[in-house]
Amino acid sequence: MIFTQEYEDSIAYLGERSLLSNIQKWLGPCTPPAPYGMGDDCAVLNPFSSGKPLLTTDSMTYGQHFDASVSAKDAGAKLIKRNLSDIAAMGGTPSSAVLALLCGPDVSTRWLQKFFEGVRATSLNYNVSLVGGDVSQVNKGAFSAVLTLTGTALDPILRQTAQQNDQIYVTGFLGGSALGKHYAFAPRLVEARWLAKQSECNAMMDLTDGLGKDLSVFCPIKCAAEINLDAIPIDQSAHKIAKLSKRKALEHAMCDGEDYELLFSINGNSNRSKFESRWAAAFPDLCLTNIGVFVADSRTSKLLDSKTKEVLSMYPGFEHFKLP
Amino acid sequence: MIFTQEYEDSIAYLGERSLLSNIQKWLGPCTPPAPYGMGDDCAVLNPFSSGKPLLTTDSMTYGQHFDASVSAKDAGAKLIKRNLSDIAAMGGTPSSAVLALLCGPDVSTRWLQKFFEGVRATSLNYNVSLVGGDVSQVNKGAFSAVLTLTGTALDPILRQTAQQNDQIYVTGFLGGSALGKHYAFAPRLVEARWLAKQSECNAMMDLTDGLGKDLSVFCPIKCAAEINLDAIPIDQSAHKIAKLSKRKALEHAMCDGEDYELLFSINGNSNRSKFESRWAAAFPDLCLTNIGVFVADSRTSKLLDSKTKEVLSMYPGFEHFKLP
Repeated sequence: MIFTQEYEDSIAYLGERSLLSNIQKWLGPCTPPAPYGMGDDCAVLNPFSSGKPLLTTDSMTYGQHFDASVSAKDAGAKLIKRNLSDIAAMGGTPSSAVLALLCGPDVSTRWLQKFFEGVRATSLNYNVSLVGGDVSQVNKGAFSAVLTLTGTALDPILRQTAQQNDQIYVTGFLGGSALGKHYAFAPRLVEARWLAKQSECNAMMDLTDGLGKDLSVFCPIKCAAEINLDAIPIDQSAHKIAKLSKRKALEHAMCDGEDYELLFSINGNSNRSKFESRWAAAFPDLCLTNIGVFVADSRTSKLLDSKTKEVLSMYPGFEHFKLP
Repeated sequence: MIFTQEYEDSIAYLGERSLLSNIQKWLGPCTPPAPYGMGDDCAVLNPFSSGKPLLTTDSMTYGQHFDASVSAKDAGAKLIKRNLSDIAAMGGTPSSAVLALLCGPDVSTRWLQKFFEGVRATSLNYNVSLVGGDVSQVNKGAFSAVLTLTGTALDPILRQTAQQNDQIYVTGFLGGSALGKHYAFAPRLVEARWLAKQSECNAMMDLTDGLGKDLSVFCPIKCAAEINLDAIPIDQSAHKIAKLSKRKALEHAMCDGEDYELLFSINGNSNRSKFESRWAAAFPDLCLTNIGVFVADSRTSKLLDSKTKEVLSMYPGFEHFKLP
């Protein structure tokens, strides 16, 4: 359990100083010694050797992004992977991170240790150095963790540079994240770096809020995304959850969010089949799907059905703060 | 008021998308266009031209670091200044920042706009670029903001490199932060960069948890800080608050925390009076005080009274999560 009734297991019992030294111990080899790691006013980073420096931040809050059904280790791992997915979306390579914890005094020390097991294993796995952070107190029963991650990209691929006639692709399968997929995902770092090197690739982002909403953001101005709904790669989890929700599996694939797959576009004049063959040779195990094309269209709505040419408005995706 | 009863003033009414575009508008010139500012998966930073890159993170939570008595603008300004003080403590120059907001659905849009006025004015004042961030939802009645700031330092001054016989100095006056000083402070960036260039300066940190506690951290191993208590520069606010608290003004100066002044050491073999004259010429308006010296001592306690040579144990400073 994330919150404890046992005073001796609470971080209030531990106190700030012991908590910080425990965190350093829990992180072990993924936090270098000060000033390159925890312990000074700032962390001193290794010079960014090649490429452009990247910076991103993302948070996880108990009750919002995870709940009691999720293991502490999975929660810690996900915090790192969410941020890695943003670095991947630029075609980048991750480097150093700082972690701010906002903990109620009743957060369980045992739970937090497991959380850091996830942070540590994932950071080591993806070569992320945890170089510093901050611990501060919030209300009883509350826990948030905010990770800020640096990285580099030789030639960052942006999300707003797609053009009219570009072909639209997604990696993997979409939907059903609520069935645990949003913990099991692997950030597409290697694939994204490969894509960043392909001259056809015009734009890229990671899918976090659902394909419907993310496509509206990704769509160039004065264009709409003409989508072949039959082509959408629907995840098995989306089919399973559809049986429970009585909604269509396609709707889950379009709206659930937290797919952490790549959405990218390739130049309309390029040779699609050659590009797809190169992909298949490089990543035989990761499904790649052409889902549509950007067409000239100055209406507000950014999604069209490629068969009927009609506006698709039923796929809003996830939005924070919006009442149901 | 930070939280609103009026639905139309709440960020829940606004929704995430409008909130983000409002934030971009509120930040105005202190956030560059994407991908160098908000709007892509990561922010692309300008290459770190000279010196070593620095990274630091610090948070502000309603009810912990500020309350209803503090204006939204002051709260926003303080978030930036706290982090600037950490960059200063390394002798660095600030560069880019990302901001993670954790907001209850009842946070007032009007309040948040004023908060960003403080963020914006302070960022512009100190040449900080707000390049990105994250907004996510937490419980009703809760608000935290986490800022992560990058910077560079030609030759970072560390906090654990003081040596035996080093003379100990503090800038400015200490104590009484509760009387509003912790909003009015100016991060000592210029002074710290000057100190980083002086060959005598061995170590530096900023005073955040109270001189008593911070000195224990600053003290080299197998040493103690022999402190001249009569020399401690006590702020007027500490004298004022002492009348209300019935504690000694000195105790407030040693323990209150949030002074955001510099604590540094200079080599014991250097010419103190020459160093002090150079300081006075460079910063005629900022008081500099020699408060003691590091002496060999292998006891656990790190604070000694220079007159009696006895252990000073009554100045613990501020610690999160500790029960009163």
